[in-house]
Amino acid sequence: MTKTDDAPFAFEGLDRVMHEKARLGLLSSLVAHPKGLAFSDLKQLCRLTDGNLSRHLQVLQEAGLVEITKSFEGTRPQTHCALTRSGRRRFLDYLALLEQLVRDAAQTAGEDFSHARLRIIPG
Amino acid sequence: MTKTDDAPFAFEGLDRVMHEKARLGLLSSLVAHPKGLAFSDLKQLCRLTDGNLSRHLQVLQEAGLVEITKSFEGTRPQTHCALTRSGRRRFLDYLALLEQLVRDAAQTAGEDFSHARLRIIPG
Repeated sequence: MTKTDDAPFAFEGLDRVMHEKARLGLLSSLVAHPKGLAFSDLKQLCRLTDGNLSRHLQVLQEAGLVEITKSFEGTRPQTHCALTRSGRRRFLDYLALLEQLVRDAAQTAGEDFSHARLRIIPG
Repeated sequence: MTKTDDAPFAFEGLDRVMHEKARLGLLSSLVAHPKGLAFSDLKQLCRLTDGNLSRHLQVLQEAGLVEITKSFEGTRPQTHCALTRSGRRRFLDYLALLEQLVRDAAQTAGEDFSHARLRIIPG
């Protein structure tokens, strides 16, 4: 994460657009489905209302992470959503940051556990 | 994560109180410092303003994750923050969920990479 030597827990690189819980679910759904997903599938997979799904997809689209295609199947409108190429790369970068964060936090917590054990068992 | 068979990307267990980026930074700082940290240290480590830090600490305190102790060093007021025992456990549980999420997403993305490779190299 960038420029964090003096503020190691500012997590500057952790993009809020991708970090938000519902959007993290949407991006995880889409990275698992490279051909994209229909609006109705996303709605079910992420358990979102129509309104919330539309709102979050718009945020992801405006950030260039997701492309949305509207078409008709007969007379029924269809909305198809997929990660953009750069969206896929940026989401994988985000996941790598998250993995590092979890590893660092677990490591410091692990050190603490070992200290606790040293205190409990007399030398 | 609970009850997600029909909505695997709803990430029900991902507590929004802990997931918010600034609070994730605060909890990561505190799990790395079992004896707790002064308000001024947290402010610097997480690069937060006084106002933002106060607001986020209040949310964490109300959720029972963090305990805040006010005292005086001479005439200077001191605010000390530490994870509660249950806060520590809940944050470690949250980290375990996050680790699972990252692993699952990377795995599905990895499968996709291998498909792409299979398409590029002719049999």
